[in-house]
Amino acid sequence: MPGRFEILQKDLAGRIGRLSTPHGTIETPQLMPVVNPHLQIIPAPKLAEMGALMIITNSYIIHRDESLRERALELGLHGLLDFRGPIMTDSGAFQMSVYGDIEVKPLEILDFQNAIQSDICVPLDIPTPPDVERTRAEAELRLTESRLEEAALRPRGALLAGPIQGSTYSDLRMRAAEFLRNLDFDLYPVGGVVPLMEAYRFNDLVDVVVAAKKGLGSGKPVHLFGAGHPMVFALAAAMGCDLFDSAAYALYARQGRYLSARGTWRLEEMSWLPCSCPVCQGHSAKELMESPEKTKLLAAHHLYVSFQEMRLVKQCIREGSLWDLLEARCRSHPRMLDGMRRLAAEGDWLESLDGSSKSTFFYLGPESAGRPEVIRAGRRIERIMLHGSVLITDDPKADVSGFDHVLHFKPPFGPYPQELSETQPFNAETPEMTDAASLDQAEKIMRRLVKANPSASFSFRLKHMPDDKGREA
Amino acid sequence: MPGRFEILQKDLAGRIGRLSTPHGTIETPQLMPVVNPHLQIIPAPKLAEMGALMIITNSYIIHRDESLRERALELGLHGLLDFRGPIMTDSGAFQMSVYGDIEVKPLEILDFQNAIQSDICVPLDIPTPPDVERTRAEAELRLTESRLEEAALRPRGALLAGPIQGSTYSDLRMRAAEFLRNLDFDLYPVGGVVPLMEAYRFNDLVDVVVAAKKGLGSGKPVHLFGAGHPMVFALAAAMGCDLFDSAAYALYARQGRYLSARGTWRLEEMSWLPCSCPVCQGHSAKELMESPEKTKLLAAHHLYVSFQEMRLVKQCIREGSLWDLLEARCRSHPRMLDGMRRLAAEGDWLESLDGSSKSTFFYLGPESAGRPEVIRAGRRIERIMLHGSVLITDDPKADVSGFDHVLHFKPPFGPYPQELSETQPFNAETPEMTDAASLDQAEKIMRRLVKANPSASFSFRLKHMPDDKGREA
Repeated sequence: MPGRFEILQKDLAGRIGRLSTPHGTIETPQLMPVVNPHLQIIPAPKLAEMGALMIITNSYIIHRDESLRERALELGLHGLLDFRGPIMTDSGAFQMSVYGDIEVKPLEILDFQNAIQSDICVPLDIPTPPDVERTRAEAELRLTESRLEEAALRPRGALLAGPIQGSTYSDLRMRAAEFLRNLDFDLYPVGGVVPLMEAYRFNDLVDVVVAAKKGLGSGKPVHLFGAGHPMVFALAAAMGCDLFDSAAYALYARQGRYLSARGTWRLEEMSWLPCSCPVCQGHSAKELMESPEKTKLLAAHHLYVSFQEMRLVKQCIREGSLWDLLEARCRSHPRMLDGMRRLAAEGDWLESLDGSSKSTFFYLGPESAGRPEVIRAGRRIERIMLHGSVLITDDPKADVSGFDHVLHFKPPFGPYPQELSETQPFNAETPEMTDAASLDQAEKIMRRLVKANPSASFSFRLKHMPDDKGREA
Repeated sequence: MPGRFEILQKDLAGRIGRLSTPHGTIETPQLMPVVNPHLQIIPAPKLAEMGALMIITNSYIIHRDESLRERALELGLHGLLDFRGPIMTDSGAFQMSVYGDIEVKPLEILDFQNAIQSDICVPLDIPTPPDVERTRAEAELRLTESRLEEAALRPRGALLAGPIQGSTYSDLRMRAAEFLRNLDFDLYPVGGVVPLMEAYRFNDLVDVVVAAKKGLGSGKPVHLFGAGHPMVFALAAAMGCDLFDSAAYALYARQGRYLSARGTWRLEEMSWLPCSCPVCQGHSAKELMESPEKTKLLAAHHLYVSFQEMRLVKQCIREGSLWDLLEARCRSHPRMLDGMRRLAAEGDWLESLDGSSKSTFFYLGPESAGRPEVIRAGRRIERIMLHGSVLITDDPKADVSGFDHVLHFKPPFGPYPQELSETQPFNAETPEMTDAASLDQAEKIMRRLVKANPSASFSFRLKHMPDDKGREA
């Protein structure tokens, strides 16, 4: 059934899913290369060969060009572009945000998308940029919402997207999402975020996306509009974004820039190409730089590394190691680390969504102290009922005679029943040296246990305590 | 001139270099695939096609097999293996460490390596394993050293390697290196470390390698014997290892394991292949799993990703961003983070070697507070001579009237003259939130400045102080 979205596996707020469209069901997270119908740097059939299962194009560009429009109406979008998989169409909202106005009415462009057999149609919303006055953000959001209400009532043969706007006001984003979730949309793009990504404002990106996700609930598929740099895929997927579109592959190629999941190089500053894709396997940095096909080759490289990173994200979601990937990816830039820290601060939300099947917990730095598994251990600690004398120790050889209960202690989890030592998450791999964030978290959880069991008397034999309060009296 | 080693670029203790051999000059760091003359999972000419510029094989295996021995003596090693680039030969020491004894005399196997025209010959040393009794480590080291002294006097047409042993005793490793640096060797392998890498004891690996490097001095080329997992290349290169050998590509392939720079998967647990190499581009995870050529294909994948990681390491050395790569790579496992922290604790040593030309400093977590640039800022702070009234502030809008000197303050660097704001390293990109390690380091450097200028009077206008002592009185 077109529009149906199934979630198969979960990790953090991310998931492996399946979205049904008239031209087939695709697995998410999925990256859609952007195809410019005027200028296909890599033609759509070639994109399919390279691994693109779904693409996105701009219905406004097609509509505005008489020859393209007629061919699209005659052949359908799939015939026009020679692509058999699902095709999503944008509405011209981006052009409006750049040029101020466009020459088509909202329902006209929506009906046109249906007429050319788009698989996912996007109504003409108002993509409000970041940091505008609140009154403007609110007014534009009202206009977007009224257009979306109108769009949702229109007859359709395809999926319909309901973009979530609201500028950098998290409460507006959340409210917009709450409003739209009850209308009949199949996909929820988070819009107006390209300027945040261009300015490396990944902490603000996290605020905006998490607010939208909280408003939507976890069951709806989400498209992060304009997220095409592989550096952000892990972070965006961890927040629960399911679709991505990349114009970046072509834009960066034209600028002579070389993408990787660790960031961007200018090609002329590269002596070696740190990639094994067909382009990089076939060219040295110098050969690529001097090739007359440089732009096309760079674009192809960008798509290969982007699809590769998406496969890695999926593999990590499947095995429950997406946090570990985030720890690595967020070392690509201090702003990425800011983004990850902002997401880590949403530990309660992540914990509420996170799947329980996990690969071994790796403690990889202070941010790991806020992982959902740790939050969950803290939430569950109060269920432990203790009476009499209790020993909490991190010494496996401690003399436990005379105690009614013995709990082990391991930062960042705090105390836990010793019989759980070999089970998740307490079998975590942790570094030799414990850091302050890990100890603080463990101590906080231990205090909750002590408070929840006022009738028990606690003794502590700990090497690893942050201050003297926890030591044995 | 064979044996000549030139250093072209430096970052941390790592470097881009050039090592001359009878069969050509190779760029370092360089990975040598191990070729088993009996069982070439990927034949040497194919290795060359895949990007191997240099290989390593085992002279003992050749010597022990009459047919191989005769062909090697007749055709030379390069004819035997059909490889035109430099070939290094091992001596059988590894076999001795596994089987306890071998059937050849030290000078016999050395002369044989010369006779078959090896480019780099390795005398038969004693690879002492980790954690043995000190008396055994010392005795075996004495034996190794006497054999090496003998070997160094032998006539030769090739490069001669002087392996550094000493088990897990850093002082023995350093002393061995100091002894050998004055003998006539062309390359210094650090030996006996495979068990450390197999057990993920990367902190002990760092201790051993850094000790050897300190004893050798920076000008000598170093081979990290048995380091073939791409996960360790960045860390090993950052310590100043120049040559690597990989039997891992074949060993892991036979075990059905899949290597990446982020760690190891079992192939059967993979749903997607997160790589763009010719193998992974041409197969799905399921196809690879079911291929009758699985072992060969996995081995090829391993080499592609290994060469790829080596190119990335070189690119990072060249642009001065090797630390950033370490920050990401050491998030592959908590034991890798232990290794990085151990290296970060060698900040003074790294600072003494580190090149000065750098990409923008990225603060990517507590370990970044120990980067050489920060150590250097701390070392130089005492050169700043101040008299009269001094303001130290992190507020660019602070009222500075009435002060004789104004210094800016930015963790982790501490105070610096404001005119250096746009220069390295003070133009560092730092996260929005400052962490404790960064503040501690900055405060320590600030105290050194205050102490070095007893006649000046200091005022502070700081948002970012870890305690009240630094605030304006």
